[in-house]
This record gives sequence, structure tokens and C-alpha cells, in this order.
Amino acid sequence: MRPGRDVPTLVARAREGDARSVARLISLVENGSPELPRVAAALAPYAGHAQVVGLTGAPGVGKSTTTNELVRALRADGHRVGVLAVDPSSPFTGGSILGDRIRMQEHTMDPGVYIRSMSSRGQLGGLAAATPQAVRVLEGAGCDVVLVETVGVGQAEVEIASLADTTLVLLAPGMGDAIQAVKAGILEIADVFVVNKADRPGADATYRDIQGMLALGERGPDEWRPLVVRAVAVRNEGIDDIAAAIGKHRSWMAGNGEARRRRERRAAVEVEAIALGTLRARLGSVREGTALDALAARVADGELDPYAAAEELIKGL
Amino acid sequence: MRPGRDVPTLVARAREGDARSVARLISLVENGSPELPRVAAALAPYAGHAQVVGLTGAPGVGKSTTTNELVRALRADGHRVGVLAVDPSSPFTGGSILGDRIRMQEHTMDPGVYIRSMSSRGQLGGLAAATPQAVRVLEGAGCDVVLVETVGVGQAEVEIASLADTTLVLLAPGMGDAIQAVKAGILEIADVFVVNKADRPGADATYRDIQGMLALGERGPDEWRPLVVRAVAVRNEGIDDIAAAIGKHRSWMAGNGEARRRRERRAAVEVEAIALGTLRARLGSVREGTALDALAARVADGELDPYAAAEELIKGL
Repeated sequence: MRPGRDVPTLVARAREGDARSVARLISLVENGSPELPRVAAALAPYAGHAQVVGLTGAPGVGKSTTTNELVRALRADGHRVGVLAVDPSSPFTGGSILGDRIRMQEHTMDPGVYIRSMSSRGQLGGLAAATPQAVRVLEGAGCDVVLVETVGVGQAEVEIASLADTTLVLLAPGMGDAIQAVKAGILEIADVFVVNKADRPGADATYRDIQGMLALGERGPDEWRPLVVRAVAVRNEGIDDIAAAIGKHRSWMAGNGEARRRRERRAAVEVEAIALGTLRARLGSVREGTALDALAARVADGELDPYAAAEELIKGL
Repeated sequence: MRPGRDVPTLVARAREGDARSVARLISLVENGSPELPRVAAALAPYAGHAQVVGLTGAPGVGKSTTTNELVRALRADGHRVGVLAVDPSSPFTGGSILGDRIRMQEHTMDPGVYIRSMSSRGQLGGLAAATPQAVRVLEGAGCDVVLVETVGVGQAEVEIASLADTTLVLLAPGMGDAIQAVKAGILEIADVFVVNKADRPGADATYRDIQGMLALGERGPDEWRPLVVRAVAVRNEGIDDIAAAIGKHRSWMAGNGEARRRRERRAAVEVEAIALGTLRARLGSVREGTALDALAARVADGELDPYAAAEELIKGL
């Protein structure tokens, strides 16, 4: 791409629904292109209308299947849908991204659906910066629901929750998730629980466990009480209930100003991540020079402790 | 702990080999205590003599068993050994930390071994900052080998490599690791490959694959050629070979100045991580105020794009 010149054209075409332009814009995001500030500026006026739905859960719980069926249900309701399958894992340990792509193939001919796997390799600020920017691209292309699917590893699920309007947490029976969920603070991030594989033994117990824990939790009259939905995604059972729960949460958010609050919170997280990425890049350019090397040598000699060295480094910014 | 007063006492006791003081110092690191700069300053004179051995690989490859047996072998060679089992995963998806602890129980009565699981929840700069600080504690306590075991998820293994003098990558037959390793750049980080579960079908093929790939790689006459060791850790087979490979790498590093270079590089990574953590904390305190909120509101309105907002935020630091 010729620097600078084509960004407005790409954005204009993405606005018209050109899938290739959408894909190229997301690639710019993924690769941390120097064009990103221009992309962001061009997309700014179209931001903030879509409902961002985060979908997370442990590996094997059925996230891709659920996403796939959910896309179908949302399309049937007339929504334009974007899907970001976010992969925080390295190729070393694999990941099911290829599987996801294949499974979602059936939607590729539907012009009302954009599906994209994304890693955050080149992005300063990692997924926390890349995901909302990719969401902006999909919003710009007219999606009014953006599903962000992420594998529940590391702190990814909590991170995604801070980037979503509505967070779906998938559980499956027999994975001991209910108690783990409490420990991990998942109860606090979930707006909708989906007990998937609800035809398996133990599904009722999982369902009851979650309801029980939700009953114990204290919340004010204006707070959202998470919904719990049963599903068997591979048989397309319960998918309409999930879509309905997402819709209920949207209406609730719109009615009490929560949508606006979450959008602002999301913007704050995004701005902070970009700022941190910028600072990291500046530290990196300090690194190219000799300042950090000289400090590191003194730390290696035991002359200076690393905190004192870091303080010196920051002074040099 | 009374602020300030007890840090020198704790460090002095850790120097004398008091296990509880070592444990308390690592807890300070893990929790990101405000005392950390004082801890670092007190430990600085004793830093830099231990060989830091990173041990990584995909889940199920036998990392904990190998670590456990390796501790035994290194102890038999007269080393004082520290073990950090670093857990980058959230409790939501589990992790084998409890299992590790139980398996290593047999070493708990040995005063020449410190074993510690560590997460990086409270740490600014995450594991990149916490791990080298915990290593400093163990060095201060007289360990001359510190094993850092990490699950191969996310970018953790590459991160750990940048913090280690010697990186062991564990593979097991039939996991398709050899090709994955190339893709993930694992060939470049490994100083020693361990083909564990070498009694299983496919082990010879895995061994040959790695040797073949290493033969293809170009390296100068002064560069280290990674060793490949076969082991069956559960039967204590090949463990002495792993210990010998670690020793060879130590001698090689000591002989050509590489030990010094890696120590400096490690210090640079650590200083940079602390600096970034500090900047993040300052952005955070900006966040407490109204600057970020006001910027986020304008981003949510589409008045301002997030890059422009981040630039404003940085100006306010």
C-alpha cells in the first residue's frame, strides 16, 4: 500500500461493504502498521454503535461451534455480524484457529458476515490495543454485532471482558468450572453463562451450581443479574436462547446508560493500551542507543539495582 | 511486615539460608510489594553468579517430572538449586501447579533446594519483571543453579528464554512438535532439546527431525550448537545427560564471555520491564484523575480517535 494515500479509499470501500477492504484494514491492525493512526482517524466518526459480545471459556467447551451457530441466529434476526477469533496462544502450543476457520466456512458466502482470526504479534499494546481497533473496522463496515471469541487462557478472558459490552462465559459439565469460575472472578465478568453440552451427565449440576452462586452474590436493584442458558451447540439447541439473552442485555444497557458507560470504559482501556505501546516503543528506541546497555551492565555488576536503573531510564525518555 | 525496617533483616537471613525468609522475599516479589526497590537494592551485591536454566514445553510433555529428577541430579553434583515454577495461566483454565508441588514434595526436607510456584498477579511488568527478581532472591540465598519452569503457553516460553542463561525445550514424540518448533522460532531459543518419553513410538523420528533441522541451520564457529538429549524422566533415564548438557553449556558460556552477555541482556530486559511497569502505574494514576475519562468520552463520541487521545495522555505524564 502506498503510504498515506490509500487509507481513506480503503475505509470508504469498507463502509460500502467491500470484504477485501475490511480484511486489509484488519491486517493493518494485526501487523501494527504505521498507518494505524490514520486508519483510526478515518474510522472515528463511525465508531461506537455496535454491541461487542465477548465469548470465552476453557478449551474444549465448544466456543467455535457456539459462535458459528450464533452467527446463523443473529443473521436470521437481521443483524450484520462480525466475528473476531482472537488467538493469544503461540503456534508452539497450537490452538484451534484453523479448525474455527474451517467450521465457519459456511458463512463465507454471506455478505452480512465478516469472520477473521487475529493474533497480536505486531501490535504494540497486544490484544488490548488490537482488538478494539479491529472492532472499529467491523463497526465501520456496518456490523451491529461483533463477536469476539477468545480461548480462556492466561488473563485473556478478563482482558476481553473489559473490551466487551456483553460477556458470554461458556462452561461444560464435568469440567469443575463452576468452582473455578468463582476463584477466577469469572462470576464478575459474565453477563451471560452458557452451559454448553447440556445433554451430558452433570449438566444440571453445573446449571444449579451457577444459579446457586449467583443467588449468593449481592447486587443492587440497578445491577444486571447474569442470565444462565443451556445449550447443545452441535445440535443447534439453545442458540436462540443465547441470542435472546444477548438481546436482553443490549436492551438493558441501552435503557439505563450502561451502554454508554461501557463504551467509555472500553475507549479508556484502548487509549491506555495505545499510550503504553507508544511508551514501550520509545523505551525500545532508548534501547537501540546505549543508555539501557550501560545501565544493564551496571546492574549485571551489582553496582546498581534494577529499580534504580529503571528510574534512570525513564528520566531519559 | 513493618515498612522498611525488616527488609535488610530478611535479606540477611536469606543469605544465611533461612528458607522462611527466602519464601517471604519471593512473596514480596510476587505481590509487587512497595518494598521491592529496597529488596532489589539489598540483593544487588549478590546478583549474577547463578546459572538460570529455563525449562519449557507444551503441556503434558513431562516438565515437572523432568524438573524434579533434574533437581536430584544437580544436588548429587553438589549444586544448590532453586526452582521457580512460573504459572502464566489463570485458575480458570487450571494448570498443574498443585501437581508440581506434590511431586516435588520429596525435596522439601533438603536444605539445599528451594522450590516455589509463582504467578505474577500483583507485579507491574508481569513475569518479565517478577521472574528475574525472584531469581535474585534465590541467588542471594546461595543457589548456583536456578531452574525456571514454565508452561509453554502464549509467549511465555520466548519470554523465559530472554530471562535464562540456558534454555531447555522439552518435546515428546507424536506431538508434532518438531515442525511447530520451527514455526514458533523455538529452534532459536533452545540451547538444549530434551526428547522426553523417549521410550514411546515416534521418539526416534522426533530426535532425527530435530537433528535434521539443526543441521540445516547456519551458525558461526563461535555459536552454540544446541544439544539434543533423549530422556524418560518418569524412569529417571537420561537425566544425568540433561545435567551434563546444562554443565557443558555453562562451561561454553563462561569460556567465551557469553555468560556475561546473557547476564547483561537479562538485566536489560528486567530494567525495561520495571520501567514499563512504572510508566503503566503513572498512566494508572492519570486514570484515577479525569484526564483519561475525558479523553475516553471524546473517543466514545467519535470526536477523537484513540491514537490522538493516547498522545494527549502521554503529554500529561
